[in-house]
Amino acid sequence: MQIDIISVGVLKEKYLVDASKEYLKRLSKFCVVNDINIKDQSNKLSKVEVLKKEKDVLETKIKSNSFVIVLAIEGKQFDSIDFSDYLEKVKVNGYSHMTFVIGGSYGVHQDIKDRADLLLSFSKFTFPHQLFKVILLEQIYRSFKIANNESYHK
Amino acid sequence: MQIDIISVGVLKEKYLVDASKEYLKRLSKFCVVNDINIKDQSNKLSKVEVLKKEKDVLETKIKSNSFVIVLAIEGKQFDSIDFSDYLEKVKVNGYSHMTFVIGGSYGVHQDIKDRADLLLSFSKFTFPHQLFKVILLEQIYRSFKIANNESYHK
Repeated sequence: MQIDIISVGVLKEKYLVDASKEYLKRLSKFCVVNDINIKDQSNKLSKVEVLKKEKDVLETKIKSNSFVIVLAIEGKQFDSIDFSDYLEKVKVNGYSHMTFVIGGSYGVHQDIKDRADLLLSFSKFTFPHQLFKVILLEQIYRSFKIANNESYHK
Repeated sequence: MQIDIISVGVLKEKYLVDASKEYLKRLSKFCVVNDINIKDQSNKLSKVEVLKKEKDVLETKIKSNSFVIVLAIEGKQFDSIDFSDYLEKVKVNGYSHMTFVIGGSYGVHQDIKDRADLLLSFSKFTFPHQLFKVILLEQIYRSFKIANNESYHK
């Protein structure tokens, strides 16, 4: 399984960089993870322009044969065990490539949501998208641990 | 406003310690935060014993005049704006002290949940309780920013 994590903006705070590195390292036991960061445009442009610009870049980064999961507050919520089962089913259905998309400050363009195979929500709360990347990496790691019947401390 | 954050176990990973410190520092602008850690017993005892032991300690730490929010997966979900409004209402209702309780690997004893003024859920997903402390601190900080009409980058 290959997993692309595409997120808008680069992690700045050292503790987030370190946390992210740690989970990427742990995940490498289970799959190949590509950590893809695209440029955050939100300081210069309007919301509509930002979403459009980010969409144009995202469309060049998302592979056509990939199962695409876009993070969206209105998406479906899972518990950790159901999510692990869900990812296993994606594999069984013949996908060897998965893409997770974390939007920027303004979220993700509707066209990208329309192309998604799953809109996934972690919470009704808004999180900083930089912290969110760590939360997502941890949950993917947790999914693999569950699928492999490995114990994992909460 | 005084806020006690009571959590089971001590943060081990440096990136979590640093992230937690950063949000505690930012929060200190808005309130007095007491970061209270109680001993994690989960390696030595059964689930029932652990929850009972932690409950006994929690009962000595939770102040009787405090508004108590216990984190529980089955609790109520809020979005960030509603949660900020909720915390403001707690203040308006005369509370000057709030306590957040983050359980350990086995969660929190039912007696502590029964004493809570609010059971709060961030997600159906299970998170590591150590990472969860950072997520909670960030969301409390976000609440204060929203209540103060301060801009806050997602």
